[in-house]
Amino acid sequence: MDQKTRKQAPTRIRMGDLPELVGYQLRLTQIAIFRDFNATLGSFEITPGLYGVLEVIATNPGLKQTQLARAVQLDRSSVVSVIDKLESRGLVERRVVAADRRSNALELTAAGAALLARLRPLVAGHEERLAAGLSARERATLIELLGRIFPEHR
Amino acid sequence: MDQKTRKQAPTRIRMGDLPELVGYQLRLTQIAIFRDFNATLGSFEITPGLYGVLEVIATNPGLKQTQLARAVQLDRSSVVSVIDKLESRGLVERRVVAADRRSNALELTAAGAALLARLRPLVAGHEERLAAGLSARERATLIELLGRIFPEHR
Repeated sequence: MDQKTRKQAPTRIRMGDLPELVGYQLRLTQIAIFRDFNATLGSFEITPGLYGVLEVIATNPGLKQTQLARAVQLDRSSVVSVIDKLESRGLVERRVVAADRRSNALELTAAGAALLARLRPLVAGHEERLAAGLSARERATLIELLGRIFPEHR
Repeated sequence: MDQKTRKQAPTRIRMGDLPELVGYQLRLTQIAIFRDFNATLGSFEITPGLYGVLEVIATNPGLKQTQLARAVQLDRSSVVSVIDKLESRGLVERRVVAADRRSNALELTAAGAALLARLRPLVAGHEERLAAGLSARERATLIELLGRIFPEHR
């Protein structure tokens, strides 16, 4: 093998054991999903996590921050920073609860509710594209199998 | 309903349509996986993404940055910052290629190869825990179904 050939980079890239790992495949899928989500909702400055937070507050008006943190799998400090962000954007408000001065109740503002109403069909479209290669049954199987990965953390 | 009852937060949190979304379930799974990965490998300051980069460089010595970027789904600027980080930690080196001065060839250093050898069994253990609730067949089904989500982005 001459010097030049030896120094050239391989043209076909081998991925080692990575493709055999569920963890790696999930990460690839997650990157692809995030790309489509961001192309669809990025102009609203909404990530999948923020969408989930808006949806959970909308469905549970009066929710406390600690409850929200548990529901969306965020730690306490992350949930505070997420709510700060949504509050500064006028989408969520912290309402003082007369019966419990230590913790505030979360609610969407009118602007938050209006934004969520615009986002929902976009998220539905994203979900439809994401699952376009799956039958209804395969989609259900996928959700079922995902639920068996670290069920103790969910 | 009296004032006090009305102001109390709900005790059981409803998740709206979120649990029906493959995108949401994948995100939950990904968070749980990251938690276990980080508990296992966080002390090495290694993320799933960095592990993948080390593995791909190990398997393809002499790889160019642009090839690595494509292989691990990073954009050009992210891959530069990842390699800067690994290089400053003494794990990866950029070797000048005589035949092509415009781009460097990536290689693990001896320290990088030694670290990867320590990480591999830990990643294997993480993967084993992750898939503990799945039979071999279910694991294969899961990988197959994941591959049908945005195949054009993979």
